[in-house]
Amino acid sequence: MKKFINTAETMVAESLAGFVAAHEDIVVFDSDRKFVRRRDIKAGKVALVSGGGSGHEPLHVGFVGRGMLDAACQGHVFTSPTPDQIVRAIEATDTGAGCLLIVKNYDGDVMNFEMAAEMAADRHKIETVLIGDDVEAAGLPRSQGRRGVAGAVIVEKILGAAAERGAPLETLKALGDDLAPRIRTMGVALTGVTVPQTQRKTFALGPDEMEMGVGIHGEPGQTREPFRPADDILRHLCETIVADLPKDNRKNGLLLINGLGATPPAELYLAYNAARRIVETHGIAVRRSLVGTYVTSLDMSGLSVTLCLLSDDELSLWDAPVNTAALRWGE
Amino acid sequence: MKKFINTAETMVAESLAGFVAAHEDIVVFDSDRKFVRRRDIKAGKVALVSGGGSGHEPLHVGFVGRGMLDAACQGHVFTSPTPDQIVRAIEATDTGAGCLLIVKNYDGDVMNFEMAAEMAADRHKIETVLIGDDVEAAGLPRSQGRRGVAGAVIVEKILGAAAERGAPLETLKALGDDLAPRIRTMGVALTGVTVPQTQRKTFALGPDEMEMGVGIHGEPGQTREPFRPADDILRHLCETIVADLPKDNRKNGLLLINGLGATPPAELYLAYNAARRIVETHGIAVRRSLVGTYVTSLDMSGLSVTLCLLSDDELSLWDAPVNTAALRWGE
Repeated sequence: MKKFINTAETMVAESLAGFVAAHEDIVVFDSDRKFVRRRDIKAGKVALVSGGGSGHEPLHVGFVGRGMLDAACQGHVFTSPTPDQIVRAIEATDTGAGCLLIVKNYDGDVMNFEMAAEMAADRHKIETVLIGDDVEAAGLPRSQGRRGVAGAVIVEKILGAAAERGAPLETLKALGDDLAPRIRTMGVALTGVTVPQTQRKTFALGPDEMEMGVGIHGEPGQTREPFRPADDILRHLCETIVADLPKDNRKNGLLLINGLGATPPAELYLAYNAARRIVETHGIAVRRSLVGTYVTSLDMSGLSVTLCLLSDDELSLWDAPVNTAALRWGE
Repeated sequence: MKKFINTAETMVAESLAGFVAAHEDIVVFDSDRKFVRRRDIKAGKVALVSGGGSGHEPLHVGFVGRGMLDAACQGHVFTSPTPDQIVRAIEATDTGAGCLLIVKNYDGDVMNFEMAAEMAADRHKIETVLIGDDVEAAGLPRSQGRRGVAGAVIVEKILGAAAERGAPLETLKALGDDLAPRIRTMGVALTGVTVPQTQRKTFALGPDEMEMGVGIHGEPGQTREPFRPADDILRHLCETIVADLPKDNRKNGLLLINGLGATPPAELYLAYNAARRIVETHGIAVRRSLVGTYVTSLDMSGLSVTLCLLSDDELSLWDAPVNTAALRWGE
């Protein structure tokens, strides 16, 4: 296992320390380094707090900043943050307008964010939006339902913009509950991931194999298939996603091609080129695009395709200024 | 070789088409798809044109836009653009104030940009800035001198900002000739790269080996060494760089940790954390930082460290607004 780390025990803390130092104009650590928050908390705004296991960087810390999250709590690799971390983040960012928790649908995350919400309920107004954007077809039978994957970027961006414009907690909760189910993601892996604690690949693929329908925790996907040209792979991903999306309101498509950790930009753009053509063939107008490495699974080689059908209001919220480490644009 | 491509012949064109489609608000293709240029050419401004082989994305196309390049010409993988491509880019972007060519120091690039400058000389005022930022120690004996690598990002950003502020051609040439020699880069590879045309790795490394002093074309580096913890690797890179930099004016350090294609963000931030500490131990104040995948070598796993000592003016030019696909910030 060749990785740029020192020890498995210290890698998350060292990487986070580097992240905060590199973006000290945007974020700060809390005093105990339990979470990362915006340098400038905006009084009167609803606080947006998210988090989850490490190993998915730049998610979520890379989305802390003006127009997106107020704080992000990271656990160890593929491990939920503790309720205590989350409570501290709520306390540090809620200036009275309440706090919206944005949670990816995994048992551990759901449980710990719920527990934190209960622990803070006597002092803070709290609502939760759950993200579960993987396609139905990606799912082996799971009690917990669709997993939350790269769609988190879209939810955090759009709710972050609405909060920045002054939307109250109830409005943000309703907006999130309406938006999240309209996002669909499907991923493909060319390699498994090596978890530093075990120094083993979570699954092994042959030189001509790929894994379809993977999540972001190194778990095997839905099917193992022979490797194929990019057009074939993207057709399968896109057509599965499109079949799982509502049939109406297809005029504002947002297409995200997300690298899972070790896929270079040139290949992501080539995949985008294929995906856009295929998606538009199905009558969805791609109005906005994002191509890059945003939600990773450690050093996995692979990518995911996310498609979301936006309303006109959501399109304007997507376009609103944002200033975070991983997503940044102006008016 | 598992890559998201269709054929080796079409991969560059397809990836570029995806890039332009994804960033259609910032860039356009020229009508023959020979180069990528800013959507809005600013009349009266000196035109900045760069380019080189493909396989280094987002360099250079990702740096086309307001505050950076006016056009970028890409050749095939690791192959210079033709003089014809470059002449067409000069013609499309020079509105009368002249054109500055920014060229990485490789024989093929130098020759073709020189030939283009001669071909266009009767109709355009042209100057050239050459980038050769790899450390002396990285060099096997080479007639052409230091190679141009990740330092290109810094030269293109700072000259781009100066051009946007209205600096005339002679000033930009002097600024570039002064800045470029104050940038030093050194890279390390954990894997070779697979060139799609040959389907072979350019060099093979064992599971416990790394290659020190690599460039960005898959050529072997200076030494093959046993793999070590991140702190040891970064100490070697940083100390070699620092020893090769001027001893004075160390108050405005700019530190760039660049992924070579397949290194995930979390590891780049961990490397930054180590590098910053080591660099500051040597009396260089790190005032600005950039961590990400900016200048790649196809799917190479590895990273490079770049350090540059800026003047106060250059610091302000670095901070100036920029709106490109790969680098974007406001006032």
